[in-house]
Amino acid sequence: MKILLKAAVVLAATATPYVHVQAEAAMRQVPARELPVPETVSPEDQALIGAPLSPIWNVHPTSADEWKEFVAKVAAPAIAGMPELLAKLNVKREQAKIAGIKVYVITPETVPPENHDRLLVHVHGGGYVLGPGEAGNREAILMAGYGRMKVISIDYRMPPDFPYPAALDDAMAVWRELVKTNDPKKMAIFGTSTGGGMTLAMVLRAKAEKLPLPAAIAPGTPWSDMTKTGDSYFANEMVDNVLVSNDGWLGDAAKLYANGHDLKDPLLSPVYGDFHGFPPTVLTTGTRDLFLSNTVRVHRKLREVGVEAVLNVFEGQSHAQYLASPYAPETKEALGEIAQFFDAHLAK
Amino acid sequence: MKILLKAAVVLAATATPYVHVQAEAAMRQVPARELPVPETVSPEDQALIGAPLSPIWNVHPTSADEWKEFVAKVAAPAIAGMPELLAKLNVKREQAKIAGIKVYVITPETVPPENHDRLLVHVHGGGYVLGPGEAGNREAILMAGYGRMKVISIDYRMPPDFPYPAALDDAMAVWRELVKTNDPKKMAIFGTSTGGGMTLAMVLRAKAEKLPLPAAIAPGTPWSDMTKTGDSYFANEMVDNVLVSNDGWLGDAAKLYANGHDLKDPLLSPVYGDFHGFPPTVLTTGTRDLFLSNTVRVHRKLREVGVEAVLNVFEGQSHAQYLASPYAPETKEALGEIAQFFDAHLAK
Repeated sequence: MKILLKAAVVLAATATPYVHVQAEAAMRQVPARELPVPETVSPEDQALIGAPLSPIWNVHPTSADEWKEFVAKVAAPAIAGMPELLAKLNVKREQAKIAGIKVYVITPETVPPENHDRLLVHVHGGGYVLGPGEAGNREAILMAGYGRMKVISIDYRMPPDFPYPAALDDAMAVWRELVKTNDPKKMAIFGTSTGGGMTLAMVLRAKAEKLPLPAAIAPGTPWSDMTKTGDSYFANEMVDNVLVSNDGWLGDAAKLYANGHDLKDPLLSPVYGDFHGFPPTVLTTGTRDLFLSNTVRVHRKLREVGVEAVLNVFEGQSHAQYLASPYAPETKEALGEIAQFFDAHLAK
Repeated sequence: MKILLKAAVVLAATATPYVHVQAEAAMRQVPARELPVPETVSPEDQALIGAPLSPIWNVHPTSADEWKEFVAKVAAPAIAGMPELLAKLNVKREQAKIAGIKVYVITPETVPPENHDRLLVHVHGGGYVLGPGEAGNREAILMAGYGRMKVISIDYRMPPDFPYPAALDDAMAVWRELVKTNDPKKMAIFGTSTGGGMTLAMVLRAKAEKLPLPAAIAPGTPWSDMTKTGDSYFANEMVDNVLVSNDGWLGDAAKLYANGHDLKDPLLSPVYGDFHGFPPTVLTTGTRDLFLSNTVRVHRKLREVGVEAVLNVFEGQSHAQYLASPYAPETKEALGEIAQFFDAHLAK
């Protein structure tokens, strides 16, 4: 048992706070591993978790035309699945313009009385490049379907043609217009990934512009830090099978959108913003999510300034997989949590 | 851009729900990696995260004597640090017996009026083997110090001499006695790791025995599943520098405690229990925690049956590191969240 004596000495040393750690010693060496599909999730989620790495993660478009081709190719299957999704969830969709900005108005066939005057504003995900037009509607349809609330999904402008701040300008133009005729106490903003980052950035801008704030927000696994800062950018690299790594198209998209602006600007990376006075917030992520740290860092920062903030983390899920299989129990649960949170915080 | 055409086809296929996944294809191959210490935590937490793998993780005692030697060696430095901890946090500690069971009564020097009649019951961690006597008091002292509430920490019997259900029997004996003279509406139960699993198991047993339930509980990163089931047992293996892997002393301790009982018994692995009617619950874990899944699975199960349950996940932390550096901002924050939750749910 000599090893134990030595172990106890080392343990005593490492138990001391304020230990000075050498950078080289501090680097954790993690060996190659095989991760089985967990038995602790639904068959639908097992299929998602067991899927190979996203075939597009390491694509690197090098011109505006290549970006547009990339975006179109990813959009095609997303758009193809929409009619079935709308039908199964009993949701209708109409195009419209608000303040000159293209939007989709997504409405459940039956809206319960308590939700009659409530309005949700949606900003879609996709790294500020993916999900133009109808392709960006998936989450909005799921929310309208499972939450039985009307949703306005903003088809904001995107790079390569329209870099920062076009997307946020469009979203704010819609918000500014909507609060003229709707009670913000009955409104929420939500979105996932880039849409989660935009949700936070919209509140930061609304604060700065002294516009009314929504009664609640739901930033799902928000792209809150574009600078590849945060532990799960490394710990979940090659573990997350959706984004896989910041070093694929994702990091390129950050630079394309920022267009030379500092990525640490809170309107690009909202985790660096001031969250005082934020509305009640519900956050969603997964244990394998590359953005797990992007999500928990926002949660902690909100809590540190006294904001009511709720965190839901789904077992085994990679980035935004709570939206990927529309009829999975976990999808209904994730959106059900958000709907319940909105119901608790939005006036009727 | 031929790769994109192919990618879009594969993406369309994987976007379909209910995909049948081959077991071999489903196994995620994760290459060897180096994880830097995150810049997104305090210097104290950086020291914890940057420390090498726990020197004791892969110790395998093979006899009762070797277990006792192991336990004593780990306890020594923990006990040595207690006087300073008590002094700095202005907390006093007394030994006592309740229902014949050894306990420590841990009391802040000054208790604010709202906490005067409140009482917290603590069950310590350590895999049902570590932390006997004073060595198990650390979390109770931190809670009394930061939460300014009186804590009774149960020095329950442990293997190798006393396997399951001795530990739980002792904890229940104390609970049964305490609720005779204290109002359970003013009481909470908390503990971390094994103590988190015991906290959940105590509520399961109190339900079964029709005893009063506490007004709130705080199972920290609970050992809710002893069967190495749950995604982070694999995804965070060799990433967590505290437990490191279930295949070290931890898995041995599970078998030693269970002593032939089915590890899936809810009193051993409470995630398999019925959580209906549980009191409001606050859960704490870290993004690198081997028990991240043990924690989020309990959170989801509680929410699924309508229990008020709050989850806090700390950036970059391995197992129970929110207790490891007693004066780190994250430690104060984690215990502050629990204290605030208790304050909201315990009668005065």
